[in-house]
Amino acid sequence: MTHSSTSEQHVDLIVIGAGSGNSLIGPEFHDKTVALLDDGRWFGGTCLNAGCIPTKMFVHVADVAAHAADAPRIGLSFTRDPVDWLAIRDRVFAKTDKISRAGFRYRDEKSPNVTVFRETFRFDGPRTLVSASGVRLSGEQIVIAAGSRPRPLEVPHDGDDPALHTSDSIMRIDALPASLTILGGGAVAVEFAHVFSALGVRVTLVARSERLLTELDHEISERFTALASEHWSLRLGAHLGGVARDGAELVVSLDGGEELRSELVLVAQGRIPNADRLGAASAGYDLEADGRLAVDHHQRALSGGEPVAGVYGLGDVSSMWELKHVANHEARIVEHNLAHPHELIGGHPGPVPSAIFSRPQIAHFGLTEEQARRSHPDAVVVVQEYRTTAYGWALEDVTSICKLVVDRETALLLGAHIVGPEASILIQPLIQAASQGLSIRGLARGQYWPHPAASEVVENALLKAEEEL
Amino acid sequence: MTHSSTSEQHVDLIVIGAGSGNSLIGPEFHDKTVALLDDGRWFGGTCLNAGCIPTKMFVHVADVAAHAADAPRIGLSFTRDPVDWLAIRDRVFAKTDKISRAGFRYRDEKSPNVTVFRETFRFDGPRTLVSASGVRLSGEQIVIAAGSRPRPLEVPHDGDDPALHTSDSIMRIDALPASLTILGGGAVAVEFAHVFSALGVRVTLVARSERLLTELDHEISERFTALASEHWSLRLGAHLGGVARDGAELVVSLDGGEELRSELVLVAQGRIPNADRLGAASAGYDLEADGRLAVDHHQRALSGGEPVAGVYGLGDVSSMWELKHVANHEARIVEHNLAHPHELIGGHPGPVPSAIFSRPQIAHFGLTEEQARRSHPDAVVVVQEYRTTAYGWALEDVTSICKLVVDRETALLLGAHIVGPEASILIQPLIQAASQGLSIRGLARGQYWPHPAASEVVENALLKAEEEL
Repeated sequence: MTHSSTSEQHVDLIVIGAGSGNSLIGPEFHDKTVALLDDGRWFGGTCLNAGCIPTKMFVHVADVAAHAADAPRIGLSFTRDPVDWLAIRDRVFAKTDKISRAGFRYRDEKSPNVTVFRETFRFDGPRTLVSASGVRLSGEQIVIAAGSRPRPLEVPHDGDDPALHTSDSIMRIDALPASLTILGGGAVAVEFAHVFSALGVRVTLVARSERLLTELDHEISERFTALASEHWSLRLGAHLGGVARDGAELVVSLDGGEELRSELVLVAQGRIPNADRLGAASAGYDLEADGRLAVDHHQRALSGGEPVAGVYGLGDVSSMWELKHVANHEARIVEHNLAHPHELIGGHPGPVPSAIFSRPQIAHFGLTEEQARRSHPDAVVVVQEYRTTAYGWALEDVTSICKLVVDRETALLLGAHIVGPEASILIQPLIQAASQGLSIRGLARGQYWPHPAASEVVENALLKAEEEL
Repeated sequence: MTHSSTSEQHVDLIVIGAGSGNSLIGPEFHDKTVALLDDGRWFGGTCLNAGCIPTKMFVHVADVAAHAADAPRIGLSFTRDPVDWLAIRDRVFAKTDKISRAGFRYRDEKSPNVTVFRETFRFDGPRTLVSASGVRLSGEQIVIAAGSRPRPLEVPHDGDDPALHTSDSIMRIDALPASLTILGGGAVAVEFAHVFSALGVRVTLVARSERLLTELDHEISERFTALASEHWSLRLGAHLGGVARDGAELVVSLDGGEELRSELVLVAQGRIPNADRLGAASAGYDLEADGRLAVDHHQRALSGGEPVAGVYGLGDVSSMWELKHVANHEARIVEHNLAHPHELIGGHPGPVPSAIFSRPQIAHFGLTEEQARRSHPDAVVVVQEYRTTAYGWALEDVTSICKLVVDRETALLLGAHIVGPEASILIQPLIQAASQGLSIRGLARGQYWPHPAASEVVENALLKAEEEL
């Protein structure tokens, strides 16, 4: 049900955030009173409404366009008909909005023990929250799953300019711009650069760093940056002066004098955990230096360095990962720990992989080569190129690689880094092996790899690493 | 070196066939005399010259064309420029011919202990072979890796008609036909149907069975057949009368009177092992009922049911699988066993997967649902649709599935069957688990699956199966 009047209420469980937080309100809570706090903007959280899911639906469209554009390499050519942006946009959001509405309806109509509050709340004490309209809630247990938001631009600009976007708004625009300047060099920046450039938008990407995706393995970042420069105009090592309107254009000024003019600007400079908006610190909860809610191994919120019984954090508000698969895992941990306060669980099931759906894809987990050189000086590092496989020949690929970092003593995978088509799927057998603590000795030859599938690049990388052990 | 004159020769090792057989002549044979027999047609075997590798290079071209053709589903549309068939063909064979030539040169120029004979040979005794030109070879050890060939058409036809093709010749045609009739309903037939129809050829596929790919899980075969009927004209349950020329066309007559006219005809009715051409039976070697050379668990050729010391078979000439990854594995077994006759090894590293690169892809291993219902009556069978995942939404996919067959007692995977995009890669974590004898309990939750990658359909299938155990 949805809460509709001013009141004061005490419940068994308050869940702040209707993304991964919503998913943990399982049948085991049917005899508990639950308050589900959603800020009223979109039900279901960032991933569903403005993150992974809609972006990847756009990315797939961009992939098809990019494959067609790249097809002369393999002897085909296509002329793309004018892009019907509204058809693409409305298809994506018809799907996600429907799921969002269904999720809300389920809680509103079919979950008698759950009351949905659709406005913003702030802590007014360790276990009390107050809304803008004056609703006051206290809970025996609290789950803080309030997510994160795009970091606002920190140089002079007009925050109300409708052409200045974040990932929250850029996918819902009414028409494709002729040009787009993207401020940022991380995953969000390069995914949107792919989406819009593949659909014909002239994209300029401005990053402070000298490479894109600098948090990745250096070689992967370097290869990706080189490929990116073929499709997008890059301004690397750039320092922003400000963003200002000039007629129909926004002007991005860079230190040094260059001015970049475009119809739209996307600010993609990272995300901020929403712990501040909740007033978590003033309620006594610890924050990390970057503003995240501090939690322990069992996802318990900390206060003065000590876990607070019955109060948990999960997902972007408290996680260093900002990944939906991690948030979902943490939600399962919290779901368990809420019900079993004396048998707390925690931790990851294995290394945390991350996939970036750009042009090309990237997937990786664990140590980069540089990190391994410090912590495991004799680690085995191998690079296997797609072009050593039949699938690489089929693609006419000369840029994609699978890189493995392996501990010489244990033969365990310390890291895996793939840049190239289908990286996000190709990495799974490596994740599986690493999660199970399997030595790579015999791993390639201990199973068949269907010939000539793309996975042969992983097989060959494993064989090469084994040889060098 | 290449043999050039009539002679009689005794060598340490004769390898018949330059495909997977060639790969086993490793450094451990450097002090042995080796005769490598290649029939002179193309060096490197079927996979490289007329099989997996060139077909998949064409399939990738077809995939890009098909994705562009399917793009209206996701809001894009393309006009394909006229197909430059020669550019596509020559790109593929420039690559594979170069590898074939390099492989030959390596044996001819850089392998002083290996003599290459480039003509057909027949057994003239258990360890003696004679060539058409009169060369007589005997060997201490013999590896029979002579491959297979397309099964010829068994109804009346003119075998010399240049428009009547097999997989050996169809990829090297000089121009795309307007129309192609494919006789057969197996993997080769459906891969070529995809290649040519995606490039604009009107394809008719004629099969005796009521479905395509009848050896697969019934549901997979049924789904595939339904999808195939959208792109190709199908004649199922058809009985061929004959093939005859009528002017510029070939006429395929079906029992019942229908005549199918097309510019080219592709005969894709399976393959025949080349044991007959070698005269293996008259030399005393056992054949299976289907004409394959009989071998034991260690790949030793059999004679009167008993293994013949030092004589091995591998690949299509002796394998029921007709798969390159199996032939390569058998080559490694034979390589070991030749050198270690008292420590013989054998067998598969795990279930044998197979991938079919058509529209859509299929990958599978192990028991079908029907087989499991007989051998494991209480097996758990689950079907997970791509459309239950974010990647499925991105594709607008409503037809693709991942099906698992799991033993209820052991929770081991008995079979896996995927029909849909990237099936050939998506199946690998399942192959890995099955090969390692891992229970599926905890498999999905014991590792991260990057969200929202296509692999989530496998994750969800595993979760569903676990729930039903």
